[in-house]
Amino acid sequence: MTLPMVFRDPSLPARVRIHEVGPRDGLQNEKTAVPTAVKAEFVRRLAAAGLSTVEATSFVHPRWVPQLADAEELFPLVRELPVRLPVLVPNERGLDRALALGAREVAVFASATESFAQANLNRTVDGALEMFAPVVSRAVAAGLRVRGYLSMCFGDPWEGAVPVEQVVRVTKALAGMGCEELSLGDTIGVATPGHVGALLTALEAGGVPVSRLAVHFHDTYGQALSNTLAALRHGVTVVDASAGGLGGCPYAKSATGNLATEDLVWMLDGLGIETGVDLAALTATSGWMAEQLGRPSPSRTVRALSHKES
Amino acid sequence: MTLPMVFRDPSLPARVRIHEVGPRDGLQNEKTAVPTAVKAEFVRRLAAAGLSTVEATSFVHPRWVPQLADAEELFPLVRELPVRLPVLVPNERGLDRALALGAREVAVFASATESFAQANLNRTVDGALEMFAPVVSRAVAAGLRVRGYLSMCFGDPWEGAVPVEQVVRVTKALAGMGCEELSLGDTIGVATPGHVGALLTALEAGGVPVSRLAVHFHDTYGQALSNTLAALRHGVTVVDASAGGLGGCPYAKSATGNLATEDLVWMLDGLGIETGVDLAALTATSGWMAEQLGRPSPSRTVRALSHKES
Repeated sequence: MTLPMVFRDPSLPARVRIHEVGPRDGLQNEKTAVPTAVKAEFVRRLAAAGLSTVEATSFVHPRWVPQLADAEELFPLVRELPVRLPVLVPNERGLDRALALGAREVAVFASATESFAQANLNRTVDGALEMFAPVVSRAVAAGLRVRGYLSMCFGDPWEGAVPVEQVVRVTKALAGMGCEELSLGDTIGVATPGHVGALLTALEAGGVPVSRLAVHFHDTYGQALSNTLAALRHGVTVVDASAGGLGGCPYAKSATGNLATEDLVWMLDGLGIETGVDLAALTATSGWMAEQLGRPSPSRTVRALSHKES
Repeated sequence: MTLPMVFRDPSLPARVRIHEVGPRDGLQNEKTAVPTAVKAEFVRRLAAAGLSTVEATSFVHPRWVPQLADAEELFPLVRELPVRLPVLVPNERGLDRALALGAREVAVFASATESFAQANLNRTVDGALEMFAPVVSRAVAAGLRVRGYLSMCFGDPWEGAVPVEQVVRVTKALAGMGCEELSLGDTIGVATPGHVGALLTALEAGGVPVSRLAVHFHDTYGQALSNTLAALRHGVTVVDASAGGLGGCPYAKSATGNLATEDLVWMLDGLGIETGVDLAALTATSGWMAEQLGRPSPSRTVRALSHKES
């Protein structure tokens, strides 16, 4: 297998933790029903490829995300893997389900904008934060790690540009209620590197240390990796990505794909930034998952390396 | 149309010139025969979208690149456009053809590695340079601008990693014989940002000013835009790109696509870096060209914006 040559950049972090979202954020967008056993095998193979954090599933009501309705069946199949396995919990009912199954790490999903809070949560931004407060405090009290997702941190399909002050306010609220890590989402993929830098600078000025931040970029306009590079330059060391670029099919009309983990690992490997991930094993896993889904992976690295090996 | 919000980064250049290679580097890889009138219309629309440099065609022998065998018919159709229209000339015979048609700018195509020089030019690296020397000197004497392409500047499929010293040596040779601009090609798409920085630093130390350099990245592993960002940070202000990502179809097994001009313009627009390009007009042009070719554009920006407008 071709591997990138290593040229370090001392201004970048020495190590990055990849927060793998494929099994949750990727598969929740799949139209094809994926058998529970295949999902469990996907999580297992991702862990075996060296991903230390694999977001496994979501305890949202099956009516909203039928693709992940098997969370109760799936989680026990992967629970004992020696990696962090966060699960999404939309509310207290979801937290109860996660706790009952022994989850050790949960995530809540907030919005930086009023329009998306209404569309996705049927609440105002502050109403959603009020809903999350008891979820987060109970999870923290139970000894769980809690991650807070913020969607629409850069642009919003209804509101356009999102003021950085607004994102800082919601981020601080989530941090204040006990979220250990805050994942800044570019849900519609419109961000560019200067915008990333401006938001990270504003968050730092607002008292949110970069050590608590993760970035979650979408590749809708092909910007995810250069935005990630900008975030690394600002000291971010946690990056969300989806194996094989799962999540929003680029062949469909509504292209909104996640950053592909392989494309990220290629860059990080080349920069000599440690991730613990074995690119060959990861690519093989995504190739296997693409077969299960019956279509090619949108990850450029997966396609290039699969071609080499065939 | 959604446009990225502008967040400037004072450490980046204020202006970038895009060297559009779609009609030459893009279409020379197409299996479909594209009518000469369509090619001319493509060049016209690209110029109208604000691209100030459009590489129009190649005066290579038709036996090697049958796709561009109509160079003699095409060039007079676009010659009067108010933009720079470089054409590729592989040797003195090609230069004669270009001069006869009134070309004002030509490019030669050298290799940084022995293996690719043999494979592509059937010569050693130095043998190829000897072949180009009279081409460049005659072109300069005729008042033409000359660009020198260097392929395999980062990795080579036969040799693996390419030492930066080797690239510096060939770049200096091309510069010394009269090439005004040197385009550093990552032909197999393996570069990462630290490698880009290392090569640019070595070239500067070797006496090649960054003002004479252009970068030409391929998106084989999804790295083209982050590598471009790294190059901008090192002061590069000329970037090669291909409208719609033409050149190496990502749907085919051998995915080796050029950086899509739209994805580049999205980033540059967001960074407030002037290019003179109208993204909407450019996207419409690539959408039109994709229709002519009968398949969707591999540019993520083109797909996302086409979806919005449909």
